[in-house]
Amino acid sequence: MKGNELGIVEPQTFTFAQPPGGLELECKRTLGPITLAYETYGRLNPEKSNVILVVHALSGDAHAAGLHEGETKRGWWDFMIGPGRPLDTDQYFVLCSNVLGGCKGSTGPSSVNPATGRPYGLDFPIITIGDMVRAQKHLIDHLGIRSLLSVIGGSMGGMQVLQWVALYPEMIRSAIPIAATSKHTPQQIAFDEVGRQAIMADPAWNHGDYYGKQEKPEKGLAVARMIGHITYMSDQSMEEKFSRRLKEGDYSFKFSADFEVESYLHYRGDNFVKRFDANSYLYITKAMDYFDLSGDRLIAKADTIRTRFLVIACKSDWLYPSYQSLNMVRQLKGRHVDATYCEIDSTYGHDAFLVPGTKQEQLVSNFLRNLCAKS
Amino acid sequence: MKGNELGIVEPQTFTFAQPPGGLELECKRTLGPITLAYETYGRLNPEKSNVILVVHALSGDAHAAGLHEGETKRGWWDFMIGPGRPLDTDQYFVLCSNVLGGCKGSTGPSSVNPATGRPYGLDFPIITIGDMVRAQKHLIDHLGIRSLLSVIGGSMGGMQVLQWVALYPEMIRSAIPIAATSKHTPQQIAFDEVGRQAIMADPAWNHGDYYGKQEKPEKGLAVARMIGHITYMSDQSMEEKFSRRLKEGDYSFKFSADFEVESYLHYRGDNFVKRFDANSYLYITKAMDYFDLSGDRLIAKADTIRTRFLVIACKSDWLYPSYQSLNMVRQLKGRHVDATYCEIDSTYGHDAFLVPGTKQEQLVSNFLRNLCAKS
Repeated sequence: MKGNELGIVEPQTFTFAQPPGGLELECKRTLGPITLAYETYGRLNPEKSNVILVVHALSGDAHAAGLHEGETKRGWWDFMIGPGRPLDTDQYFVLCSNVLGGCKGSTGPSSVNPATGRPYGLDFPIITIGDMVRAQKHLIDHLGIRSLLSVIGGSMGGMQVLQWVALYPEMIRSAIPIAATSKHTPQQIAFDEVGRQAIMADPAWNHGDYYGKQEKPEKGLAVARMIGHITYMSDQSMEEKFSRRLKEGDYSFKFSADFEVESYLHYRGDNFVKRFDANSYLYITKAMDYFDLSGDRLIAKADTIRTRFLVIACKSDWLYPSYQSLNMVRQLKGRHVDATYCEIDSTYGHDAFLVPGTKQEQLVSNFLRNLCAKS
Repeated sequence: MKGNELGIVEPQTFTFAQPPGGLELECKRTLGPITLAYETYGRLNPEKSNVILVVHALSGDAHAAGLHEGETKRGWWDFMIGPGRPLDTDQYFVLCSNVLGGCKGSTGPSSVNPATGRPYGLDFPIITIGDMVRAQKHLIDHLGIRSLLSVIGGSMGGMQVLQWVALYPEMIRSAIPIAATSKHTPQQIAFDEVGRQAIMADPAWNHGDYYGKQEKPEKGLAVARMIGHITYMSDQSMEEKFSRRLKEGDYSFKFSADFEVESYLHYRGDNFVKRFDANSYLYITKAMDYFDLSGDRLIAKADTIRTRFLVIACKSDWLYPSYQSLNMVRQLKGRHVDATYCEIDSTYGHDAFLVPGTKQEQLVSNFLRNLCAKS
């Protein structure tokens, strides 16, 4: 363990919205009880004014940094979180929770439906990014936290960042949406829909009722993940990483994987199905597709917004192209919200926010330092 | 019928490579007999010097223009071919054949294997773009044609154009590759491979043995086509065509298609499976992935190349981006081949070459007129 790495962190859970009652969702149905899995890094100061909420992307989870006891896989944003790192755990109390609808400890379609004693499957209600954020708000309230120094996240995380500001502007001092958009475009919806169709075309999906069965919709989910993975990289990064290199030195003249890029996609697909629930993939992508905070929706309460924005995009991101972040900044500045736009010059594509060594680290670090200096 | 439209055209076939013997393929296997379906438009002049060969893309066929008896669907490049049109049938003899491996009348995996009396399925050999072109050459020879005024095609058609020049430079007066590349990149391979995985994940695919069975791999093929279709359009054209318009005016909070873009993709997928064979999709995409005429391969016989090139790309094409056409032009000019590059300023994306009303029509028309004027 290096000196600025976090050590062992402990997964935690919080359960709320016990029936009768439950959380009212945008679809008008109520859901409860709801459990959110979360992790924290660093120490909450006595004023509870040093909280940074990290919100994750489609396939992310609460394990953003450090190590779980007995495991070797560090959290998905480990390079961003730790002593002396951009989200400096010597100064900030960093919190990350698995989204509602997920499959990593938070309530989702694979959770047991108390009404039936069996996993929800498709009885789980359609959720939205707004529902995810309202659920997170319960966790924040439970921890006695009244304001967030920052909310930060990439991709779908960035959508949650915007949703936090739209719903609770008065409690957000700063917001850092990365590689995000204020609404899903038809191309983004199309990619999600094809992924969903791939899952639902798998007979093992069985209308969402596959829990406890021997066959799971692994082939469909793998195809969905492979499609996603192409969109997370750039043409250039794929060229740099794989070019046309062959696995065996020559064409096989069979339908097996000839090219390294094909093996890589298979590997990514196969790996994903071991760790992710197909129904969660359906629900979370649907939530993303429903997301639309364009126009005045993001800043309906503009008069009360003191939130400062740092909007980060990656030049080679073609899934959430930088023009969409620029539109977001225009939307904000048009309502006199303090917003700074920065573009990362990486070739890595959409996933650049998950990769160390870009300008992102310094941008976030400086932004937070300035924010604290001004208070 | 307008004055410059073709009327009824007659599908034709040519069969060659009768066993024993057959056509030797790049995979070292021989295949025969081979039938190619083709159509012709206009009249062959006595010198047989007015032949333009049109080569089609992945899902295309020999029916490039005009109408079949009793049908209403005009050929896929009807706006390019006809009296007074860019491929002017008052002057040129235009020929188009369905590729080897296809499913529209030419020999492919759905054809009967004479060795077994049953459809080939996966016993069909892996073919290459080179094999497709060598098969076309047999048809051209059969018609007594010694030289081609032009070979023209978009996407995989453009690859065949390059392959024609690489194999038979002395007989090609001009070449017009559109929206093409001199080698498939890892991103292009990746999209193809995900489409293949979607087909092969469908249990009805049954290792390619589904002919005559009740269940066909329609779901898998539909997913493959939907993926493809996203790549054929541009972010901007999808925004212009669909934006976030909903089918029913409000969110359904179900997994049905909420957005018009989703319905459109379903429609495209469902339509495709009625007219295309899943195994042909596998074989043809594999041929594209194997395609590599980069470096000196395209112009190995540079000294004998008198072929004039018109290379056309579309600015908004992100599947075969214009830089790839530019690389092709650099490759050619580096060997002192006469090559002109033109970029179409359409927002339509890759499929712009299939859409009337772009600069493509005038570019092709003028290029051919100049070519004939110089002879």
